[in-house]
Amino acid sequence: MTKFADRIAYMEGSAAIIRDLFSAMDDPDTISFGGGAPATDTLPVDEVHDTANDVLRVPGRGAEALQYGPVKGVQQLREIIAEQLLAPKGVEADPEDILIVNGGLETMNLMCQVFINPGDVILCESPTFVHCVEIFEMFQAKCIGCETDDDGIVPEDVEKKIKEYHPKFVYVIPTFQNPTGKTLPEDRRKKLAELGSKYDVIILEDDPYRDLRYSGKALKPIKAYDTTGHTVFANSFSKIFSPGCRLGYVNAAPEIISKLIDVKTATNSHTGMLPQILCAEFFARGLFDKHLEEIIAVHKERRDAMMAALEKYMPEGTKWVHPDGGLFSWVELPGDIDTTELLKEAAQHKVAYIAGAGFFVGGTGEGRNCMRISYGNVTPEKIDEGMKRLGDLIKSKL
Amino acid sequence: MTKFADRIAYMEGSAAIIRDLFSAMDDPDTISFGGGAPATDTLPVDEVHDTANDVLRVPGRGAEALQYGPVKGVQQLREIIAEQLLAPKGVEADPEDILIVNGGLETMNLMCQVFINPGDVILCESPTFVHCVEIFEMFQAKCIGCETDDDGIVPEDVEKKIKEYHPKFVYVIPTFQNPTGKTLPEDRRKKLAELGSKYDVIILEDDPYRDLRYSGKALKPIKAYDTTGHTVFANSFSKIFSPGCRLGYVNAAPEIISKLIDVKTATNSHTGMLPQILCAEFFARGLFDKHLEEIIAVHKERRDAMMAALEKYMPEGTKWVHPDGGLFSWVELPGDIDTTELLKEAAQHKVAYIAGAGFFVGGTGEGRNCMRISYGNVTPEKIDEGMKRLGDLIKSKL
Repeated sequence: MTKFADRIAYMEGSAAIIRDLFSAMDDPDTISFGGGAPATDTLPVDEVHDTANDVLRVPGRGAEALQYGPVKGVQQLREIIAEQLLAPKGVEADPEDILIVNGGLETMNLMCQVFINPGDVILCESPTFVHCVEIFEMFQAKCIGCETDDDGIVPEDVEKKIKEYHPKFVYVIPTFQNPTGKTLPEDRRKKLAELGSKYDVIILEDDPYRDLRYSGKALKPIKAYDTTGHTVFANSFSKIFSPGCRLGYVNAAPEIISKLIDVKTATNSHTGMLPQILCAEFFARGLFDKHLEEIIAVHKERRDAMMAALEKYMPEGTKWVHPDGGLFSWVELPGDIDTTELLKEAAQHKVAYIAGAGFFVGGTGEGRNCMRISYGNVTPEKIDEGMKRLGDLIKSKL
Repeated sequence: MTKFADRIAYMEGSAAIIRDLFSAMDDPDTISFGGGAPATDTLPVDEVHDTANDVLRVPGRGAEALQYGPVKGVQQLREIIAEQLLAPKGVEADPEDILIVNGGLETMNLMCQVFINPGDVILCESPTFVHCVEIFEMFQAKCIGCETDDDGIVPEDVEKKIKEYHPKFVYVIPTFQNPTGKTLPEDRRKKLAELGSKYDVIILEDDPYRDLRYSGKALKPIKAYDTTGHTVFANSFSKIFSPGCRLGYVNAAPEIISKLIDVKTATNSHTGMLPQILCAEFFARGLFDKHLEEIIAVHKERRDAMMAALEKYMPEGTKWVHPDGGLFSWVELPGDIDTTELLKEAAQHKVAYIAGAGFFVGGTGEGRNCMRISYGNVTPEKIDEGMKRLGDLIKSKL
């Protein structure tokens, strides 16, 4: 058999975690707090139906949606991103410096293509999003976790590790972080942007959950404090429009965007035209504001149901994050419970979550008593039932 | 500025060619024989409109189209590929061994992720598709061209170079090749499959044009002769359904598919659900057969118009390929004309093509008097007018 590339062995650990993660979602009887999907019931099916029905009848527009398109993405969508999604949050972006990609994660893949040689260091939060670690490890980067506290990543530790490891990127999910649900405060955002400029390191900001805020005050992205082009802002339409359409975007300095365009061309030529045009029309028709209100209401109710269920069913000594938005909470169990081991029994009790250890890089054993709990695609009733099952199981182990 | 990865310098030559290729299409007054697009007028806009209109109203189906989906792709589409697109051509494929990707080229990217270390050798046709060379060079592969004659790649030279270079892949476009329009005969297809098995080398078969046959007898893919799993079959829906939907697929041995799934996950999670479902419905409703008849008729007329125009306007001593299908012909000019230089003047005369030298790997200077001529997205009238402009310009140089 023809030999695989070296990267295949290097990424095997994180790839195995991701495979487990996807396969855990298969059983329809299981109440799964595993996946990171938003509520299926809130997807804008009718709006997309009506938009498609109209757009595909407009002379020229239908053909545009089906023919090859520009590598950078549909102009209308890039303008909407700049005007409706970035400017109001304090990020002044030229649409020419925005590249449309196949979902938020593709940006991480493309950024690695542009910057990462095997052995290069990427600093990340500890814990961090395991799917991105899989991408980083596919490029044979060395991922090093930075300290986090209740407010997220600790800039002093980031600075210390920048000096020690000379990383290419600091990868950070500042808002309703995956997996913890924590949000980085304003002063730390400023500080991270400054560290990028001071040490010539890219701050790779991944901000897909930011619009799903249920409480607290909206914060500017790190990119809003970037004065030197060292912060690269990645975002996604998966939580605010449709995950299945695989649409995301990246805003970066022109010299970075031009290289991202080259590697995007050599990855899959360009992002699908029909989803881009439908998404652009969704915003152009002013459907987004009402949709955002609806998805915030639904996901807030689920966050509240999850917080109530944790209070009601978890044993004394359990700690968890009360997220101000997004889809996740992070739960730390009392006693000596290994959540990876527990998951097998949880499956028998028809409930699932993601074990915490996989979110820590370097196999330190940290997070072995933790779990990521996602409430986005579970109804309040199922949240109550699923957390009762999980609470009963955990209590039986103490 | 943070340093780019080594691959960025390595791929710069082919990336520059690709950038030129895309920018040449910008001027609307220019008659362009440059791009590889199929006829815009033949895209199935009405069929996709009606399908979308129905599908997005079916309870559950609309949400499926907008929610996260399986990495491997939509089951219905993988079954259709196996039954309608592979079995009739002599390829017996289990739908489980088919992965849906974002357009045919993404398969090349994913195959490189799985197999290519920097410095690994990929054998290819000489000339070959420059867009794929860009992908191979992004992975720092060493591309080595093999001899071709009127029937395409010469198996004896492939075998010699397999022994000499121990390549990971032999990349080949057997049917209506890009850029030449040539088709590899049956005996050479068999021979390539055997070489893959004999020397444990992957035959990476790229067959996106095969269904656009206007004359001659249909041939089985190389994959049909593969008995050991060494041939990997890549194809695309870009020419038979829609380029803008970015849909392609790969059929390979299970141990290769499982690794392709890992790297697909780490590239963009999965291919867009809405385009997959619309494409599957297009086939499930039996719309493909009639559509194929239509696109063959339109593109055959254009091929014939191009052959007539070459005869009519090209100076004596010009040679060209009469393709039995697909979108391209390959033209070799008499005298000492450098087609890269000529392109600047052609632009002033409002006509464009792709200069030949870029399709040869290694910068040998071969093909400097050649050009790729694409007739897919140019009407017969424009073909006549554009080739007249080009012929007049060429004659003025002799």
